[in-house]
Amino acid sequence: MKVRLFIDVNLASGEIIELRKDHKHYVQNVLRCRSGREIFVFNPNDGEYKAIFKGEGQIEIVEQTIEPIRENGLSLIFAPIKFGKIDYMVQKATELGVTRIQPVQTRFTAITRINYDRLSANAIEAAEQTGRINFPHIDEIMSLEKLIESWDKKQKIIFCDESKTGKPIKQVLESMPKTAKDFAILIGPEGGFAKDEAEYLRGKKFVHPASMGKRLLRAETAAIAALGVFQAIKGDWN
Amino acid sequence: MKVRLFIDVNLASGEIIELRKDHKHYVQNVLRCRSGREIFVFNPNDGEYKAIFKGEGQIEIVEQTIEPIRENGLSLIFAPIKFGKIDYMVQKATELGVTRIQPVQTRFTAITRINYDRLSANAIEAAEQTGRINFPHIDEIMSLEKLIESWDKKQKIIFCDESKTGKPIKQVLESMPKTAKDFAILIGPEGGFAKDEAEYLRGKKFVHPASMGKRLLRAETAAIAALGVFQAIKGDWN
Repeated sequence: MKVRLFIDVNLASGEIIELRKDHKHYVQNVLRCRSGREIFVFNPNDGEYKAIFKGEGQIEIVEQTIEPIRENGLSLIFAPIKFGKIDYMVQKATELGVTRIQPVQTRFTAITRINYDRLSANAIEAAEQTGRINFPHIDEIMSLEKLIESWDKKQKIIFCDESKTGKPIKQVLESMPKTAKDFAILIGPEGGFAKDEAEYLRGKKFVHPASMGKRLLRAETAAIAALGVFQAIKGDWN
Repeated sequence: MKVRLFIDVNLASGEIIELRKDHKHYVQNVLRCRSGREIFVFNPNDGEYKAIFKGEGQIEIVEQTIEPIRENGLSLIFAPIKFGKIDYMVQKATELGVTRIQPVQTRFTAITRINYDRLSANAIEAAEQTGRINFPHIDEIMSLEKLIESWDKKQKIIFCDESKTGKPIKQVLESMPKTAKDFAILIGPEGGFAKDEAEYLRGKKFVHPASMGKRLLRAETAAIAALGVFQAIKGDWN
């Protein structure tokens, strides 16, 4: 098993680093690592480094194993769903290359209290376990209107529209200008958007309604599937 | 809330049907439905019908609300993953239009005991909750070799190949012949395929290795994302 830890200090070959308390516990008591054990550490600025566990909570950085990667912006905008499901969505979004997670408050959003620390921890854990260097930033919840009115219009929003009136998502993604680099995927709440909310979104030039077929999808299924479709057609899987 | 039940008897307008014991309990004790309440019932052969709850466990079928739909074959082949995750994958696969779920035994498959009844119940529940008429059949687990040797070669297998040597999944799907109707998505086990297993798969003409980028994906993330990509590019979302 490859041990990978996100470490928020500068990484450079030859340095000795004292592990954080929770990492110490994990490495020494959970994994029972012995001195000499290989451990990988990473952060978005420095990339990934191989290190050697020196015992007593210290590691020595050996060499860079992955260079830092600058990823295009890919936001996931969604109405909070219940505990468990939201954690799951954050983990999957991390695996699928999301750089920013933006919870949004809509008319039919039942849940508005969000544990940002827990969601960040989920994102970091997913990055640790799946070899990614970067992980999404969890932004504070905002009302739909405030979010849209303050939106940077250069970042196109792909609006997964349950009303099924949008063009197929493949067609929408293929019609995006080649110069567009940053995108967002917008998933509605479990009860759908209110009629006027959906109308309001469709009226914005940088919002592109897209259809994902006739079957009803749960919010987290729609999010994971849409992110996969995006990466395959317009993102870095292609 | 729309109440939807899968009922495995012939449905026709005007008929009075006695609900099954577990449905009776659900309708009368869990939902506390009163006589006159609208209930929707469906099965793959007859489609969906509106019915009226008559009290004492009986419903009267009123009229057809969705016609039966003949879907193209879309199989999901995967190595069993642990309890919880496998249920989740079956639910999501149902939402995404899978018609058949085929567990496969590979060299690095840790789990081989499968609760088929529980997985079928999961598929039916997902169909009930997300408005689908059809739901996937759960097939018995088979060894990879036995599965591939007895495979109907007309059904192309899209092999989500972690080795990253395959062409991008978009390109693979777009290169499929227009006449091909039935497909399968093959996802490897958590530890990956053994080298010779992957070689063996790549040697078959009806198996098409496809890449989903450089990030490591958990098995269930890969499955849900690949099914979305398939539906968007080659399936019925387009």
